[in-house]
Amino acid sequence: MTTADIVILGGSAAGITAAITARRHYPDKRVLLVRRERQVPIPCGIPYVFGTLGSPEKNLIPDSILETNRIDLLIAEATKIDRQQHRLLTNEGQVGYEQLILATGSLPTKLSIPGVDLEGVFAILKDVENLRLLQRELQGAKNVVIIGGGFIGIEFADEINKIGSKNVTVLELMANCLSLSYDPEFCVEMEDLLRARGITVRTSATVERIVGDRRVIAVQLKDGSGIPADLVILGIGARANVELAKEAGLRIGLTDGVAVDRTMQTSDPAIFACGDCAEKISFFGGGPSLLKLASIAQLEARIAGANVFGLRRESDGTVGVWSTAVGGLAMGTAGLTESMAKNLGYQVVCGIVETPDRHPGGMPGAAPMKVKLVFESHSQVLIGGQVRGSVSVGEMINIVAACVQKRMTAEDIATFQMGTHPALTASPIAYPLVNAAEVAIGQMQ
Amino acid sequence: MTTADIVILGGSAAGITAAITARRHYPDKRVLLVRRERQVPIPCGIPYVFGTLGSPEKNLIPDSILETNRIDLLIAEATKIDRQQHRLLTNEGQVGYEQLILATGSLPTKLSIPGVDLEGVFAILKDVENLRLLQRELQGAKNVVIIGGGFIGIEFADEINKIGSKNVTVLELMANCLSLSYDPEFCVEMEDLLRARGITVRTSATVERIVGDRRVIAVQLKDGSGIPADLVILGIGARANVELAKEAGLRIGLTDGVAVDRTMQTSDPAIFACGDCAEKISFFGGGPSLLKLASIAQLEARIAGANVFGLRRESDGTVGVWSTAVGGLAMGTAGLTESMAKNLGYQVVCGIVETPDRHPGGMPGAAPMKVKLVFESHSQVLIGGQVRGSVSVGEMINIVAACVQKRMTAEDIATFQMGTHPALTASPIAYPLVNAAEVAIGQMQ
Repeated sequence: MTTADIVILGGSAAGITAAITARRHYPDKRVLLVRRERQVPIPCGIPYVFGTLGSPEKNLIPDSILETNRIDLLIAEATKIDRQQHRLLTNEGQVGYEQLILATGSLPTKLSIPGVDLEGVFAILKDVENLRLLQRELQGAKNVVIIGGGFIGIEFADEINKIGSKNVTVLELMANCLSLSYDPEFCVEMEDLLRARGITVRTSATVERIVGDRRVIAVQLKDGSGIPADLVILGIGARANVELAKEAGLRIGLTDGVAVDRTMQTSDPAIFACGDCAEKISFFGGGPSLLKLASIAQLEARIAGANVFGLRRESDGTVGVWSTAVGGLAMGTAGLTESMAKNLGYQVVCGIVETPDRHPGGMPGAAPMKVKLVFESHSQVLIGGQVRGSVSVGEMINIVAACVQKRMTAEDIATFQMGTHPALTASPIAYPLVNAAEVAIGQMQ
Repeated sequence: MTTADIVILGGSAAGITAAITARRHYPDKRVLLVRRERQVPIPCGIPYVFGTLGSPEKNLIPDSILETNRIDLLIAEATKIDRQQHRLLTNEGQVGYEQLILATGSLPTKLSIPGVDLEGVFAILKDVENLRLLQRELQGAKNVVIIGGGFIGIEFADEINKIGSKNVTVLELMANCLSLSYDPEFCVEMEDLLRARGITVRTSATVERIVGDRRVIAVQLKDGSGIPADLVILGIGARANVELAKEAGLRIGLTDGVAVDRTMQTSDPAIFACGDCAEKISFFGGGPSLLKLASIAQLEARIAGANVFGLRRESDGTVGVWSTAVGGLAMGTAGLTESMAKNLGYQVVCGIVETPDRHPGGMPGAAPMKVKLVFESHSQVLIGGQVRGSVSVGEMINIVAACVQKRMTAEDIATFQMGTHPALTASPIAYPLVNAAEVAIGQMQ
């Protein structure tokens, strides 16, 4: 029987980060990562396999990161967690653990409509073989329909559209694409861009059935219209992969993830869980959160990995920070949107500004950047923000994220000391984060 | 006599921001900005006039920003501050004020060596006429020598080098260019890049005299060597422009700026000062700070502008955040470097990591990003950071700045919730800010 002090089950963003963190915090322990996949795709890079990168092989997490960090690897499928004996049963034999970290990720949400099992209907699996198959099928497909206009859906749509000679359609149930993370004025910009790039975007579109005999031929909407389809991709979300945990009798949470406390400990003190498989609470109010992101996974993994032999870190709950990019347009969100905040019962004041992201605006590569900040109106505390612009959006939204996490007020942000540079940022006078805070302060007075 | 409730003297980054802030906080007051210049160059954009932008006219702060904010403008040269009568004397008549904000900026530091007054020796004035003259002179110059290897010096060097057919030399007194804001391992990368782009960089180079009869012909170093020069540019720093304040009897500080308290109030309660003309204290320990940056100016202006009719904001002192870019390489710094911190008496622990700034590393436009974080070793509080990479450095260093300002610890940063995206940022597993904190934590244990 193989044994290790710390065994991590799962080899994607959560598993690898948990393993590296455990290694850093416990340099003398044996750390073993057990995963099913021979090769691990970078989860967020999956849409880019089809257009920008060109193949699943160009989107792999290199195993060298494990070797560098002295993490042993066993490629095996776990079939059972034996909590009494502190061991995993796998198709490659038993693996004994002193402490176990579950990072088993998520599976695509099932769509309960007729026709989902037809040939040519693909859920997005984080699996190289499945991605290769999808890529091959895409070559022959003329009409591609993507069900779900979240970030995965629109990124898939744009990348598939880049292949050329295809009719790509995105179907979104809600009034706007991306509406779970952006206010409508941002969503509409992305929809307009997708349309300008030749993609059909249909919002408030309820899919009634996927039509076909053996193979898909169309997608039928509730309003009666039918969309021809050679290939359908389901991008409607993910559910925690908790089968083994459930069978082992670990407590399962309200959102069907493995229940964990703020230290990422499960109901068994020898088992931690992190990433998509773990139950999450929101940073805002502490209620259950359904967000599943690689960035959340890595945070939880840093907590779990540090805590396995002594509690050192706690989670404040999930802020929800992510960005997306289509063509030259990038959008980022952190925390609550104005609409989400109001729905949750917050009274909010927003500040919105737009300015070139370089200065003067004639500097090469300059693009307009829009920043919206959402403050709770009594405390002036920042509870969310959205940014639209070019490549610097990716880090700009992380400044917003830092401000949210440290519960900065509008005054804190209005007197924020930032650096600026003509080729890299907006001007000091117009710096959008600071000015959005000032605009909000003006409305609070 | 013209009068206004709030008069701002000076029309660059500090003056404009003070005026806008006063307008926002006191919507019913009359705000008047008095400045000498007909046209105001964007200060940080000045080096880019010569190569990237092509002319001083493409680097102007538009006066529309004043109109939009209902700020009146008087172009006039102030000759005296009459504190008893609450008025400015100018060459265009008297201007009465209830509250006055001084934003008179800085003047180039004088170099006390023989030859500085020869024709062809230029200090960098924030003045369109002077920039036009320099641009004309550059056309005929073959050998250009820049004295001073700070960010202004290297940006000028690279932009002038872009014009083509010139020998450009940078002379730096210290052991490295940029050494007041970066640790040597960063400075050396910038020096290597400048050399690779055809610029001669000489460090530890003390200039003894500028040689010539009526016009410069060479620069002579202390080591005896001479460098042929048709044109010499002095980029050795700036001193506060306080002549009027001094004559008016306002208290002057230890660094020869107008003395102010944390509310930016001078020794006269009816007069505030901000930007390069104002005395500064450091965020670290509170001692005097010699930093002069447009970003600091705008912060102080937001404090002064908000405080003129009732104290609302205070400064925590100058963190010092800025970035620079040459070719595709960008570098940013916030707070103290390792060397500065040690010189000041801090015990420090540093974390350094390097990773591609997109993921996978094969994404178009990916560049290696290096992040160094400097922590005070007892408290684990972040006191500085440096970043080298591509365009996202400009906002990445501002995340570091936010962390410094909120006195975040290594643990805070290691458990930071950031967003990531293949086309915009490093991967969640390798995100350099978080990993640099983890590396530092590993060294603290």
